[in-house]
Amino acid sequence: MNEVKTRRAGSRERRSRAPALEQLPWGQPQTPFPPLEVFSAEQIDQIHDTSMRILEELGVEMMSAHARTLFREAGATVDDVTGCVRIDRNLLMKTLATAPVEFSLTPANPERKIQIGGRALTFGLVAGPPNVSDADRGRRPASFEDYQNFIRLAHHFNIIHVIGNQVVSPLELSSETRHLDTYFANLTLSELVFHCTAIGRARAMDGIEMMALARGISVEEMADDPSLLTIISVNSPRRFDAEMAEGLIAMSEHGQAVVVTPFTLMGAMTPVTLPAALAQQNAEALFGAMLTQIVRPGAPVVYGSFTSNVDMRTGAPAFGTPENALANIASGQLARRYNLPYRTSNANASNVVDAQAAYETQMSLWAAVLGRGNLIYHAAGWLEGGLTASFEKLVIDVEMLQQMSRLLMPIEVNTESLAFDAIAGIATGGHFFGAEHTMDRYQTAFYHPMISDWSNFETWSEAGALDATQRATKVWKQALAEYREPEMPADRREALMAFRDRRKKEIEQNGL
Amino acid sequence: MNEVKTRRAGSRERRSRAPALEQLPWGQPQTPFPPLEVFSAEQIDQIHDTSMRILEELGVEMMSAHARTLFREAGATVDDVTGCVRIDRNLLMKTLATAPVEFSLTPANPERKIQIGGRALTFGLVAGPPNVSDADRGRRPASFEDYQNFIRLAHHFNIIHVIGNQVVSPLELSSETRHLDTYFANLTLSELVFHCTAIGRARAMDGIEMMALARGISVEEMADDPSLLTIISVNSPRRFDAEMAEGLIAMSEHGQAVVVTPFTLMGAMTPVTLPAALAQQNAEALFGAMLTQIVRPGAPVVYGSFTSNVDMRTGAPAFGTPENALANIASGQLARRYNLPYRTSNANASNVVDAQAAYETQMSLWAAVLGRGNLIYHAAGWLEGGLTASFEKLVIDVEMLQQMSRLLMPIEVNTESLAFDAIAGIATGGHFFGAEHTMDRYQTAFYHPMISDWSNFETWSEAGALDATQRATKVWKQALAEYREPEMPADRREALMAFRDRRKKEIEQNGL
Repeated sequence: MNEVKTRRAGSRERRSRAPALEQLPWGQPQTPFPPLEVFSAEQIDQIHDTSMRILEELGVEMMSAHARTLFREAGATVDDVTGCVRIDRNLLMKTLATAPVEFSLTPANPERKIQIGGRALTFGLVAGPPNVSDADRGRRPASFEDYQNFIRLAHHFNIIHVIGNQVVSPLELSSETRHLDTYFANLTLSELVFHCTAIGRARAMDGIEMMALARGISVEEMADDPSLLTIISVNSPRRFDAEMAEGLIAMSEHGQAVVVTPFTLMGAMTPVTLPAALAQQNAEALFGAMLTQIVRPGAPVVYGSFTSNVDMRTGAPAFGTPENALANIASGQLARRYNLPYRTSNANASNVVDAQAAYETQMSLWAAVLGRGNLIYHAAGWLEGGLTASFEKLVIDVEMLQQMSRLLMPIEVNTESLAFDAIAGIATGGHFFGAEHTMDRYQTAFYHPMISDWSNFETWSEAGALDATQRATKVWKQALAEYREPEMPADRREALMAFRDRRKKEIEQNGL
Repeated sequence: MNEVKTRRAGSRERRSRAPALEQLPWGQPQTPFPPLEVFSAEQIDQIHDTSMRILEELGVEMMSAHARTLFREAGATVDDVTGCVRIDRNLLMKTLATAPVEFSLTPANPERKIQIGGRALTFGLVAGPPNVSDADRGRRPASFEDYQNFIRLAHHFNIIHVIGNQVVSPLELSSETRHLDTYFANLTLSELVFHCTAIGRARAMDGIEMMALARGISVEEMADDPSLLTIISVNSPRRFDAEMAEGLIAMSEHGQAVVVTPFTLMGAMTPVTLPAALAQQNAEALFGAMLTQIVRPGAPVVYGSFTSNVDMRTGAPAFGTPENALANIASGQLARRYNLPYRTSNANASNVVDAQAAYETQMSLWAAVLGRGNLIYHAAGWLEGGLTASFEKLVIDVEMLQQMSRLLMPIEVNTESLAFDAIAGIATGGHFFGAEHTMDRYQTAFYHPMISDWSNFETWSEAGALDATQRATKVWKQALAEYREPEMPADRREALMAFRDRRKKEIEQNGL
């Protein structure tokens, strides 16, 4: 049913009269800048040393007996009564040494392959909100139709490279089988690498098997040429959930990428001071990263950071703050100390798509990019501290991400770009509008915005005096109208449908 | 009349019931980061070489005969028929060598002294718009009352360090004597260093004399301990206005700071390519800087950049674009090549205080700060490409500037901030809200926002669902209510009034 509707939507003719949306071509930006640093090497060593003391003296509570066994066999000190796992720093460093410094993820369409690490940036779609909002229908619980529209937009906008964990939670679908519907949507409505839900082994395995079907290769083949990533959260302070551990183990066993991200709001899950928050985050992230290398040495793993502050007057989380930006920068220093790719985020805490949403997002985005975040999660569509995915915010974020991407492009300095002759050709006080040097280059010289309106006040007023958020409504609608569903061989599509339907029945009968 | 009203306003009791606005204490942020670089040293040399060819082979049209004489006497090649001044690169470098690498400016209250250069950042109030806007009265031509209110706000908000050229043009006042009223307002409603209008010698001299009166020192004494700055624009490409040259000469003769800023929109006043725009900007800025050192070796001078792009489809100026950000970064590389302090800007082209205004402003602000802008002009209140000064935008900019300032503050890493014992004291899965380490620090641990609202959606909705711009209206009104006019000795105030009134009569009778 759903897929029939979807295919018809995908193949209908575009109705809009507006010119097609202009956007940058597909590709990952490569940063030319050296990473920004908040702390000196000595200060990073102090934070590292505190992390090592946390792991050696305090340990982490690992709630999965299976994972505890793996840690014990690897040489860690395990207490099965309390669940506490303690790790010597030398053992940790030796185990982490097998982690790759960078790796690639290949989806069904190899043209949408991405590189995680080095100078490459990867921007991810917002992930996880229970609510959705747009100008027409306001804020509301998310549906599967909302979910599918976000996937279509992520596929349509070239600057979005990865689909994160369920962009919104489609609340009308059973929580036990929802992952099968969302995987199917990811694989048929987009061609992007996506996040595989790793709450327990079964959901991870379903994602791995479905991606292998979509690629037309075996699960074993995919272990050497991975396609998927997952975010493993830590219940900070120092507690690792059993289901998350099982999901991590399944992903790493199968060579898929694991991003270990402690959720550490300063003042709530960590002390209020940034060095302490980073020391704790670091201990927790490395603890999870070690487990991936115990399971499968060489398995792709990413150092995740999600450290921000809370409003100490109310306990509310805050994002895009100076403290959040500092954590985005400093966590990159830590990740690079261990030669791990680095995941950070681009978040804000505004309740509405306004100036606050934009300045907080730019604050965290600049810090994430200059801190050399390799995977910048929640980069498009995040609103309200992550409780809402916004269609308007998504489009405004796409604009900001494209601008950032353009900023990072290399600039040639040569006779043509220095243009001495063009300068000599214009009289003093004249202008360059009609110069040949201008005419030859004007169409590509500058970034063409999707949202920004530079018309004068009178023109802008006559056109309805729309602000950026109102213009964004038009753009996401136009993008959905222009969206084309990617081609997929019929046999693979049928195999995916059959898998999804079979697993739904199994789960309905036997549980997950 | 005016001053009586003003003093009453300044001494009235605050009526608002809201708690007093919280803000950071007065002070200039010091950047801990190395300057970001867009170009390699070799590329900067190529741009430099092109600038030198522009000055040697093409020259700059200097419309002031007086200035041409000064250039000729200094060794430049001058054509009095065309006005063309050509400068050999060795002569230029030798003349520029006397310029100070940094300097300070001292206003009437020495506590508001500022440093221009090095790691210090200076944020300036928006300067120059003909229009003003606020939520209550919309967009309209500016009045002197608007002017005065902006000066009050600049004085009230500690993060604003400098008053730029007439924040708005008070259109009901005579254009010939307006500068006397605005200088008087600057000196009595604020204690800040300000911009002295240097369109012709007379306006500059009036500012210098009034500041000396306000400080209670002589004009000669002030030459060794300067107080004022001016922006000297260039009519790019390669034309230097006579009035501007006379203003520059007057300021430099009296040891006051001159900021030479070519207004160079790529595609209009320069070629479309960034290296060419920078080469031309560089030639023009150094040309003006050289004149300051001819007039008075050692006079304070700042390298100014105002390079952005136009919308090539309409010719409209754009700000806060990737190209503008690149220019903000690269121009700092050029300024430092000549050991000159660097002026850049924090601009946007939105017609309204919306997400675009915020993301463009953050884009240019981050580039200005990381490009090591020493003087960041138009940092608070600029809207609509500089055609409007906005009360709401000013407050949102103050929030962004304070956040940036907080980001740049040094962070201590020590036993207390690493807080191993605090981490050890909280059980796994617990929280730090009530921990002693938290309680001892929670009031100062994080930046307290003035505009950002982090309350949850329900609380925010019940409070009226105000967006950031609507909240900004409340904040500037509260700031005006909290504003206190600074004290000034009665004799100095009277001397200023007498000077203003005498000069008004002279100008009315004899012209400027």
